[in-house]
Amino acid sequence: MDFRELRERVYEANMALPAHGLVVLTWGNASELDRERGVFAIKPSGVAYEELTPASMVICDLEGNVIEGSLRPSSDMPTHAALYRSFEGVGGIVHTHSNWAVSWAQAGRSIPCYGTTHADYFFGEIPCVRALTKAEVDGDYELNTGKVIVEGFEHLDPLATPGVLVRNHGPFTWGKDAAEAVYHAVVLEEVAKMATRTEMVKMDVDPAPQYLLDRHFLRKHGPNAYYGQG
Amino acid sequence: MDFRELRERVYEANMALPAHGLVVLTWGNASELDRERGVFAIKPSGVAYEELTPASMVICDLEGNVIEGSLRPSSDMPTHAALYRSFEGVGGIVHTHSNWAVSWAQAGRSIPCYGTTHADYFFGEIPCVRALTKAEVDGDYELNTGKVIVEGFEHLDPLATPGVLVRNHGPFTWGKDAAEAVYHAVVLEEVAKMATRTEMVKMDVDPAPQYLLDRHFLRKHGPNAYYGQG
Amino acid sequence: MDFRELRERVYEANMALPAHGLVVLTWGNASELDRERGVFAIKPSGVAYEELTPASMVICDLEGNVIEGSLRPSSDMPTHAALYRSFEGVGGIVHTHSNWAVSWAQAGRSIPCYGTTHADYFFGEIPCVRALTKAEVDGDYELNTGKVIVEGFEHLDPLATPGVLVRNHGPFTWGKDAAEAVYHAVVLEEVAKMATRTEMVKMDVDPAPQYLLDRHFLRKHGPNAYYGQG
Amino acid sequence: MDFRELRERVYEANMALPAHGLVVLTWGNASELDRERGVFAIKPSGVAYEELTPASMVICDLEGNVIEGSLRPSSDMPTHAALYRSFEGVGGIVHTHSNWAVSWAQAGRSIPCYGTTHADYFFGEIPCVRALTKAEVDGDYELNTGKVIVEGFEHLDPLATPGVLVRNHGPFTWGKDAAEAVYHAVVLEEVAKMATRTEMVKMDVDPAPQYLLDRHFLRKHGPNAYYGQG
Repeated sequence: MDFRELRERVYEANMALPAHGLVVLTWGNASELDRERGVFAIKPSGVAYEELTPASMVICDLEGNVIEGSLRPSSDMPTHAALYRSFEGVGGIVHTHSNWAVSWAQAGRSIPCYGTTHADYFFGEIPCVRALTKAEVDGDYELNTGKVIVEGFEHLDPLATPGVLVRNHGPFTWGKDAAEAVYHAVVLEEVAKMATRTEMVKMDVDPAPQYLLDRHFLRKHGPNAYYGQG
Repeated sequence: MDFRELRERVYEANMALPAHGLVVLTWGNASELDRERGVFAIKPSGVAYEELTPASMVICDLEGNVIEGSLRPSSDMPTHAALYRSFEGVGGIVHTHSNWAVSWAQAGRSIPCYGTTHADYFFGEIPCVRALTKAEVDGDYELNTGKVIVEGFEHLDPLATPGVLVRNHGPFTWGKDAAEAVYHAVVLEEVAKMATRTEMVKMDVDPAPQYLLDRHFLRKHGPNAYYGQG
Repeated sequence: MDFRELRERVYEANMALPAHGLVVLTWGNASELDRERGVFAIKPSGVAYEELTPASMVICDLEGNVIEGSLRPSSDMPTHAALYRSFEGVGGIVHTHSNWAVSWAQAGRSIPCYGTTHADYFFGEIPCVRALTKAEVDGDYELNTGKVIVEGFEHLDPLATPGVLVRNHGPFTWGKDAAEAVYHAVVLEEVAKMATRTEMVKMDVDPAPQYLLDRHFLRKHGPNAYYGQG
Repeated sequence: MDFRELRERVYEANMALPAHGLVVLTWGNASELDRERGVFAIKPSGVAYEELTPASMVICDLEGNVIEGSLRPSSDMPTHAALYRSFEGVGGIVHTHSNWAVSWAQAGRSIPCYGTTHADYFFGEIPCVRALTKAEVDGDYELNTGKVIVEGFEHLDPLATPGVLVRNHGPFTWGKDAAEAVYHAVVLEEVAKMATRTEMVKMDVDPAPQYLLDRHFLRKHGPNAYYGQG
């Protein structure tokens, strides 16, 4: 099998993370799934961004086995695999330690929807899922991280809420492909920053009214969308 | 009719927005009015800044009809049209989701005038207008956004207060042309940042005295202005 | 008289202000005094930084008369002249609207000395002087700004405290020449940022002990200095 | 003896500090020890970064004597020497006045471990050591700074906690070589920023659970590490 295009796209998505100011050092990783072939490409573990090439991306299957590649995959790979297994329609995933989103994850708070910037991409609050238990951390930690995210989305549509905060850790975002997952990572960081500053400007501020959120989400998504060149 | 110069100026104004750090992704738009011909040029909807050209700017009339251009105009176009219809002397409009200004809009607070940086360009506080009702959001949302701004300026001179915060949304600024509207968008963001930090440094701080605001505004505006090369 | 070198140095100092991130748009100005000849060069009013040249710097005398130059000097010129007249040993002055320093000026607070970064350059708190009265603002406003600064330094050595906050306005800094005044403007902004964040991290924090401030200031200044290659 | 490679590495480490946004002006310095030969190279005092060359690095012995070099070493040199004498396994040291870390040092607070970004590199809180006494400051100030740091690590492993905050002053970090000390300086600043923002988002937030910290530290360190290409 030929993974050239998949590697190339995942390489581009990974390189976009420092370009958008979302990562420092080697933190963060992007992957993209070829659902038909049942494989995804992901960044190798702990390699400096300036040394990455399309060839250094690692190909894994959905059970988390390495299919092709001479490097170890990102240590977060089992989390990616778990999300791909459970979230139909998701074709790309990004994990970062972007500073504002991590701050909400460390505070253990979901990000309320305070305005249209948020509502254009996330239909309601961006959830912070429950902390992993000691048993979950001591066991298959990265796999269990994925399971706790999936559990937190039991009553949520991952395509309408394309991101999450993992407690005391940081954000994961996703989309139809790796590029869209990167896009949502940018939005999440910007929205986390705005929400913090909104609360600085006014304590105990209310979320935006639901009818405004409906309007903004639906002008970008679904059959009646009228934003962009559609 | 030939819109080459108008397109060129509006293109430059739009490109200035990311250059000034006022937009991420595709958020934000600038327009400029040719009042004599009754048309304005505006950014197309959802197109990446690096793909914009003067030719991709869309020409609309004051009723919001597309006159020339193969792309859809910005979804905020009806707001621009409404402001041009009501605000005489305004020849350029900018909308952004710049982070500090949005934070005040999300908090639902007008920005108090705490000092001369603000007073040099905005004569008094920068108002946050009332939230749109459900009926206004469910109806002609973007047109109604313009109407609510105009309503908020019933007792204000838009040329002395060249910007506004739309509740739970973000800032609109304007000026005699698109370039001046961009300039005021830069000032508004800087002033929103300063006001937030001023309140961090001291809670319950008073606005600057009115006589200082008068002096600063009038040294830049009106017949006795003495700032710049006049 | 030939002002070529003076113009050149003042031009470089002005261009350093946006390079250090201290100004947006056209805000801010630097000047340098040739005390022997009794003249100083200063930035012209309201000219974009990218259009400045050494030739556009304006030469003024200590009474604030323009000696040479086809452009109007900065509107803050009379403040510079007043400081040069009163502060012996000062050979360069900078005024900016740098965001963190302005926030302290708008809050009306002097910046406490919380640590060695501050103490290395400013011997004690950086004072915020009293607000100008209505009469002072309505009269020779820029001249009176200089007088209020001088009044605030009645019991301070301007060479040991090379900067000030003007209430509701912003910072002025100075030094032996324009380059040193720029240097102190950079320090002041950095210290204002640190002080704000220090108070975020801990409310009601105490200033650093006087013996630490003495040590740091004196290792950089005076006969026993041992910092640098002096 | 030939110090060419040592000078080159220390030069690169020093130049990395402004590149990572950790220093303004001339603040900050990096050194590296050749433990076999008992010498370290360090940045000269008060020289602008753009004028540094490998040749301008100063070679000192562990008692703080200059062995080779025409410039004075950084005034913090005796602190570096004291740490090298006491901390076995440490081969590189960095000192900066990076803004967020200094703010914690000025507040006199140790940085709690709120999440995995911190836990990946620092095993527990990053300590802020006690203030130096007047006698310690008036005496061999820079040497005493090193002694107070060493005292603060009496019950800590410097290799598991590769950094510290000096009260009212700023951070020191270290590692097996200068490059790793720079790496830890980047992490410390990022973690200080996250911790401040975490407390903005939620007051009285708890540190991350110990079992999570154990897992993250141990997946990067020790015999069972599985992060990176090991």
